[in-house]
Amino acid sequence: MSPFTRQRSRSVAALGEQKLITEITRWLGSASPKPPRGIGDDCAVLSGTPRDQLITVDPVIYGEHFDDRIPARGAGAKLFNRNLSDIAAMGGRPRAAVIALATAKNLKIEWLRDFYRSIANLARRYNVLIIGGDVAHQAEGLTATMTMLGEAKKKRLLSRKNAKADDLIFVTGKLGGSRLEWHWKFTPRLEEGQWLGKRAEVHAMMDISDGLAKDLPALQPKGTRIALSEDAIPVSKSAKQYSETSGESPLVHALTDGEDYELVFAVSGRTKPKDFIQEWNRHFKTHLTCIGRFVKSRAVSPFDDELDLKRFHGFEHLR
Amino acid sequence: MSPFTRQRSRSVAALGEQKLITEITRWLGSASPKPPRGIGDDCAVLSGTPRDQLITVDPVIYGEHFDDRIPARGAGAKLFNRNLSDIAAMGGRPRAAVIALATAKNLKIEWLRDFYRSIANLARRYNVLIIGGDVAHQAEGLTATMTMLGEAKKKRLLSRKNAKADDLIFVTGKLGGSRLEWHWKFTPRLEEGQWLGKRAEVHAMMDISDGLAKDLPALQPKGTRIALSEDAIPVSKSAKQYSETSGESPLVHALTDGEDYELVFAVSGRTKPKDFIQEWNRHFKTHLTCIGRFVKSRAVSPFDDELDLKRFHGFEHLR
Repeated sequence: MSPFTRQRSRSVAALGEQKLITEITRWLGSASPKPPRGIGDDCAVLSGTPRDQLITVDPVIYGEHFDDRIPARGAGAKLFNRNLSDIAAMGGRPRAAVIALATAKNLKIEWLRDFYRSIANLARRYNVLIIGGDVAHQAEGLTATMTMLGEAKKKRLLSRKNAKADDLIFVTGKLGGSRLEWHWKFTPRLEEGQWLGKRAEVHAMMDISDGLAKDLPALQPKGTRIALSEDAIPVSKSAKQYSETSGESPLVHALTDGEDYELVFAVSGRTKPKDFIQEWNRHFKTHLTCIGRFVKSRAVSPFDDELDLKRFHGFEHLR
Repeated sequence: MSPFTRQRSRSVAALGEQKLITEITRWLGSASPKPPRGIGDDCAVLSGTPRDQLITVDPVIYGEHFDDRIPARGAGAKLFNRNLSDIAAMGGRPRAAVIALATAKNLKIEWLRDFYRSIANLARRYNVLIIGGDVAHQAEGLTATMTMLGEAKKKRLLSRKNAKADDLIFVTGKLGGSRLEWHWKFTPRLEEGQWLGKRAEVHAMMDISDGLAKDLPALQPKGTRIALSEDAIPVSKSAKQYSETSGESPLVHALTDGEDYELVFAVSGRTKPKDFIQEWNRHFKTHLTCIGRFVKSRAVSPFDDELDLKRFHGFEHLR
């Protein structure tokens, strides 16, 4: 049987990424444990060793995550940093990685050299060993898949799952405009993630890969509403710049572009945002903003300018 | 810069797989430790935990490892079993896996369901947890990459590196004909590998993925010659069958087809082949053959029918 079809209704495009992942999890059934042990968090957690082990996998695909406009070292950096960002999002420490390369025969040796060299440079900087891989032929293009292994920095790992009603919502850096330029110069928030992992008042965390509008609901506790202050959203310069030609507002770009690789996390509602940010600023130059709160579903809005996130749609793969 | 070129001399095809892997290892430099810690064995070994951890990565690619002639469950089984075979080849125990799926939008949902279900069935059978993955779009075809994690069954892992001069060479099962039918019904030699890992007289081991002629030199100790007895090579029925139409001898198929996923291993020269096989037969129904010996380079041949493996070429990817 051919794996492919001309009927859209029978194809994975009819499901879209989110539903597809739900279906895959269902098909795997008891072979797939619940997150954070299994599918559904930034990394999977493998226990049974003194420290929990972290595993994450992400590819870069020609035409999807990079193209001729970005240099080979940019594609390599992006592959490494996408994975590192997932380790950062659990407050973990990276240890090792393997790279599976599937490529057409006409790949330039020179391009591939720069690609691996840039991965090697980052691996040395972050003390990650590249311990294995695979090389295979595919008819068209290039798909490079990295699996990165890490471990809990302390005993504690920050999953997506433990936010509470009334928790404050913080986001690092500024958002938007990234995917439009095949974002590859970002710095994963590794030290920030590890620091947050040690703070008891931080309840849950993830990185933003498909845009805040699509990603943030994964942190949302049951029985709550995501109440964001529109004015508080940290909009990047790129988002403003692209807005001039895209016909969309800078805010739309900030909420939906994806590939920000910033951290978003939930902090106990008893914390004063100002104090938390002051403490943060003693350690990091990275921008930090309190953008809102997980309020009880029918609570009165804490903001005059409450933003309805459902009006925005983050990046959908496979549509 | 485009990653691709029309000039064959500048492309990875000019290198071929083996040289490409050597180049990649060079490009990675100090970021890549020596095998078995790094690139060059069936699995990479990650230490720092009470038991050494094993990591291996292998894809299945549409048109390369499967096509319309094999069912979705066959492609899934092949992906799982290719990886499991690498764990088996180190004498390890599998623990968990992640799957990165890159696919065109027109992939059939039904096909993908059967693909994941067959992986789940095997995962349950071998007690492997599917703990994570990724879904991404690519323009054409399907590339599914599995990373499998395992651990040493005992303290000892069998790498490719410790064979000695005069060691006997054994191979499990029968060889050849597999790649021609997109081999997917094979059973990885997991229990066999674990049993061999516990035997002190077994010095080194690997699985056969690209054909004995190409793979066996990886076990060969320095200063030795691979002396095989032509008559001893266990030729499969498929190899004989394909020989009728291929114009090649069954022996050529047995030595070069690849995708056998049998184990080949080196046993102390002081062992009597007959005794070892007798002991083996008490545990396994799997066929076992002593096919030769790593003799000192200029030693007189122990066989009347010594086979020169260099006359044969195993499967070369990317050529």
